[in-house]
Amino acid sequence: MSQELRNRLFAELDRIVLIDPHTHINAHQPASVNLADILGYHYYTELAHSAGLAREQIEEPGLGAKEKVGRLVAAMAPLENTIQYSWFIETAQELLGFKDDRLTPKNWEALFDSAAKQMSQPDYAARVMKQSKLESVFLTNDFDDALTGFDTRTFIPCLRTDDLVFHFAKPTVQERLQRATGIAVKNAATMRQAIGKLFDHFTKHGCRACAISLPPDFVPLKVTATDEAAEHAVQAALQPAATTSVMHSRHLSMFVFWTLAEFCAEYRLPFDLMIGVNRAVYRGGVYQGQDLYDSRVSLIQYRELFNAFPQVVFPISVLASVTNQELTSYAWIFPNVVTNGHWWYSNTPTYIEHDASARLEAVPRTKQIGYYSDMYKLEFALPKFRMYKRILAKILAEKFCQDRGWSEERAIALGHDVLRGNVEKIFFGK
Amino acid sequence: MSQELRNRLFAELDRIVLIDPHTHINAHQPASVNLADILGYHYYTELAHSAGLAREQIEEPGLGAKEKVGRLVAAMAPLENTIQYSWFIETAQELLGFKDDRLTPKNWEALFDSAAKQMSQPDYAARVMKQSKLESVFLTNDFDDALTGFDTRTFIPCLRTDDLVFHFAKPTVQERLQRATGIAVKNAATMRQAIGKLFDHFTKHGCRACAISLPPDFVPLKVTATDEAAEHAVQAALQPAATTSVMHSRHLSMFVFWTLAEFCAEYRLPFDLMIGVNRAVYRGGVYQGQDLYDSRVSLIQYRELFNAFPQVVFPISVLASVTNQELTSYAWIFPNVVTNGHWWYSNTPTYIEHDASARLEAVPRTKQIGYYSDMYKLEFALPKFRMYKRILAKILAEKFCQDRGWSEERAIALGHDVLRGNVEKIFFGK
Amino acid sequence: MSQELRNRLFAELDRIVLIDPHTHINAHQPASVNLADILGYHYYTELAHSAGLAREQIEEPGLGAKEKVGRLVAAMAPLENTIQYSWFIETAQELLGFKDDRLTPKNWEALFDSAAKQMSQPDYAARVMKQSKLESVFLTNDFDDALTGFDTRTFIPCLRTDDLVFHFAKPTVQERLQRATGIAVKNAATMRQAIGKLFDHFTKHGCRACAISLPPDFVPLKVTATDEAAEHAVQAALQPAATTSVMHSRHLSMFVFWTLAEFCAEYRLPFDLMIGVNRAVYRGGVYQGQDLYDSRVSLIQYRELFNAFPQVVFPISVLASVTNQELTSYAWIFPNVVTNGHWWYSNTPTYIEHDASARLEAVPRTKQIGYYSDMYKLEFALPKFRMYKRILAKILAEKFCQDRGWSEERAIALGHDVLRGNVEKIFFGK
Repeated sequence: MSQELRNRLFAELDRIVLIDPHTHINAHQPASVNLADILGYHYYTELAHSAGLAREQIEEPGLGAKEKVGRLVAAMAPLENTIQYSWFIETAQELLGFKDDRLTPKNWEALFDSAAKQMSQPDYAARVMKQSKLESVFLTNDFDDALTGFDTRTFIPCLRTDDLVFHFAKPTVQERLQRATGIAVKNAATMRQAIGKLFDHFTKHGCRACAISLPPDFVPLKVTATDEAAEHAVQAALQPAATTSVMHSRHLSMFVFWTLAEFCAEYRLPFDLMIGVNRAVYRGGVYQGQDLYDSRVSLIQYRELFNAFPQVVFPISVLASVTNQELTSYAWIFPNVVTNGHWWYSNTPTYIEHDASARLEAVPRTKQIGYYSDMYKLEFALPKFRMYKRILAKILAEKFCQDRGWSEERAIALGHDVLRGNVEKIFFGK
Repeated sequence: MSQELRNRLFAELDRIVLIDPHTHINAHQPASVNLADILGYHYYTELAHSAGLAREQIEEPGLGAKEKVGRLVAAMAPLENTIQYSWFIETAQELLGFKDDRLTPKNWEALFDSAAKQMSQPDYAARVMKQSKLESVFLTNDFDDALTGFDTRTFIPCLRTDDLVFHFAKPTVQERLQRATGIAVKNAATMRQAIGKLFDHFTKHGCRACAISLPPDFVPLKVTATDEAAEHAVQAALQPAATTSVMHSRHLSMFVFWTLAEFCAEYRLPFDLMIGVNRAVYRGGVYQGQDLYDSRVSLIQYRELFNAFPQVVFPISVLASVTNQELTSYAWIFPNVVTNGHWWYSNTPTYIEHDASARLEAVPRTKQIGYYSDMYKLEFALPKFRMYKRILAKILAEKFCQDRGWSEERAIALGHDVLRGNVEKIFFGK
Repeated sequence: MSQELRNRLFAELDRIVLIDPHTHINAHQPASVNLADILGYHYYTELAHSAGLAREQIEEPGLGAKEKVGRLVAAMAPLENTIQYSWFIETAQELLGFKDDRLTPKNWEALFDSAAKQMSQPDYAARVMKQSKLESVFLTNDFDDALTGFDTRTFIPCLRTDDLVFHFAKPTVQERLQRATGIAVKNAATMRQAIGKLFDHFTKHGCRACAISLPPDFVPLKVTATDEAAEHAVQAALQPAATTSVMHSRHLSMFVFWTLAEFCAEYRLPFDLMIGVNRAVYRGGVYQGQDLYDSRVSLIQYRELFNAFPQVVFPISVLASVTNQELTSYAWIFPNVVTNGHWWYSNTPTYIEHDASARLEAVPRTKQIGYYSDMYKLEFALPKFRMYKRILAKILAEKFCQDRGWSEERAIALGHDVLRGNVEKIFFGK
């Protein structure tokens, strides 16, 4: 009976048309053009590498799409237990007409060819979105993205700011900023001006959020353009062949980050914080498969930020499930803290179930963004959101309908809030 | 069948008459006088504020009880998913005759009026206790509480010591201590004498525990009245307009804390430690809704204490579920460490289930205090203990009866130990 | 139906013949000779002590086996809820013909006598292994173990290295190393030679792994025999009555540890890391019942090691469940990181279920060693592995067959990999 209840709830949740509040979709090429775009997703390359396939095999210069897929398929048997593998199978079955439940050296070529044909049809991307019940998706735009050539109602700009906060000492970043804004940064004041220009440009093009991923040791303290620390840090970063000290580098990050928060307040943009990643931990890893973390991070590091910007909404993602209770508690107390999805290494069923249950029973229902796909290609919204919706249906069935006597309608309404309603409310003010 | 088994076990557990081993009840006014006492509980004000209600609306000077409830009710729809909201509904239904399953702008006034009438009846508090199967409750008494004017067999004194350990540098605390003990603290030795007087006073009035809440960075090392560090720290705290250094302040805390442990040994009082809270993290929050935490805390910080006082029982609560395994392991190894309830941000079903399961399968059954309500008003014992008992019934049904083949009788006996038996054994030596 | 599915899966998993990849078995006396060998296991002595039995009662010099068991039985009622107690009962029932489900002052003597008789039979150890479906077990050998007098195909040597890494400053360790290798360590170079000799000796005797347990604050950085830091540290350790500084002691540990990793690479031995234990936290505890931990540990501390030795497989155990997600993620990314069992304080059902679920859905199936017994006497393989297999059956039933539509055959094949297949693959290259 419990299983039937779960199925009924899932069916209702699965009807909801979605706005995906965080992806890495390329608006100019949102869907895959062949199976290599799908299996080239870092979830597959990194797992195949972890299970034994050499990076050189995967990233060989000039490697063709079909050959790459062949090599990956030959190495995928050890991954069949993973939930990531199940995303692929569900994608292939639901969107590409695949009939088997495993991709093997025997059946992959037929799928490759059939996929290439389907993907080349002009309405393919639209078909995928429709079948996935996707109305629109948030992008992850570089700060110097022109934001032209696509429909910003379907592909919603989001200002990604990692480069500004953590890599401004690189000449290429400085050059990109100057080109994008027309402002040559000379000091903290012009740095602030340039950042303001970016907000102007982005919000004029329908941008709905500012976003950043942050390492576990980042502690954002207040450093503003009029502080000496900001000035010294900017000057140090502008030196040719700058070898900025750790102190300058921290002050610069704090200054830029704080300035971003100030502009989020001014432009009324939510500021997505994705907290906890260490970059390039495994230096020999495949592209995008090198990052890990130190789970010893605390939201107490953000106390000054949350206190200083009550008018800015901070949708927060944490990398490790051990930080989820803090996130739950901070969202329960701080009006401007909102829980956001299940990120990366926490985006697997066991952790989603534990983390989502805790949020659903302690955080106001208006302050929870249930899920985002984080996808690079449109095909992944369907299996990832379905994974989440199945878990959500399980939690609603067991913890709300059974344990607390809720009606199915009431449970579905809660599911609607976290799947769709809150995205509209938080990012579109509806 | 599993659900029926859970129901049967719950029904048996729900018969047990309880001693609530930790509350904030005011013995002179234990029950609510109107609905504002219930909805004014920080769990509702802080969640309503988090969901959008301005603090000024909630804490407006001179605000009447009815108006306050009206404002809160208008802001409560976003909280309907929370387990805290379900406590309120169960309280209203079971104790106040409320017939609906939501409190709305339409039905709240009738409940307010009916509640006020019921609460004004002379036997109301006694009726609530009887209906909640409460035999007695532990209080949280300021160190200068007279402890008179109430029945200390029903309202059991507990010496709360946060002020002494963390705020002795405040002149008001010094004055209160002098008034309460007749001793003017001049140095470490008289400080120790004054504390001894408090233990004398409290134990003469039926006190059964000493208690304190502690921040995550507290590390209690041995500092006693004969140590120079204690002397210097006390002298510094006694200076007019003292701006004690961090070092003095730590030494003072360690000295007072260690002295408390010495008197717990002498007076044979359990010492309740509630570990992990940071005060006033959200400075703009409502009353009692400003505290959060850094979950990076370890019981290894208490190793010297546990080794030094084998004769003192330490019932320990941890604020975050990530510390629960340490608590489980420390209680499994140290004879004087006892697990105590599910505190505050961990007092929600998902964390209770995970944490209680781990304890029930690895800590001796005699060393687990299952639950306390932490309530400020008597009405909350019923829904909070029931929440716990439902989870306990689920764990006993699934992990003991089903997975380990236990009989229902055996499971209920284990439930009795953690709900009632161990409270008697640990605090009353029965 | 779910319970029947679990039972069917368990029955199939329970047929699998096992190689236990980590135990503390004494190859010269693998099974118990009386019940005191079983109840003398630290899990029982420490829990009995924690529940109130004085250490002096348990460890009284000259105490006879029967008297010791009698004292423990008298103190065991408070432990009946623990999973550790259930291991004992299942052992007694399955291997010793015990008919009751509790060991009491009334029935223990008959069991003691009957057990002694059974254990004295010449084929007893072989019978226990057969009944437990144990083909062979890994040992934990001191570095100076002769490794002779037993069949190394059944009792597989494993080089345990804690003494070398953390206690080389002790003259007894230096003497043992000299006796074992014939090399008098005079400097870093001869230290390295001596360690090489050990690898030579061990691998010639069928050793299949190098192993070590590590405290939470250990950070292995590269220090090799040609570094000054290594030389200074070795010299300091060789001084008579050495009072090595913390710095020397850390450098020495890093140097020896790094050298072990180098030889693991050279001799192609997996290097088992058991991360997170603090020794002798409870100084008044019983033998082997004094160790606890600080759960604030991160695998980021091992990043340099994992990067430097891609050719060495590191089967990793973590002490606390809060570190399990990091382990899962590191094994998902690093080809040379493998998850290994459920260690010590995490070896209880609630934590096993949460931790194993997370691994099974995110780590390649070829990179997970499901379980080891960690036992000191052969009798414990049966109940400990069965506990694990029951949980594994539950996870496979619920998360794979039900939630993901897997066939039972497919689920059992995954179970086989983690129970047996990967042990062969990782330690025997099959």
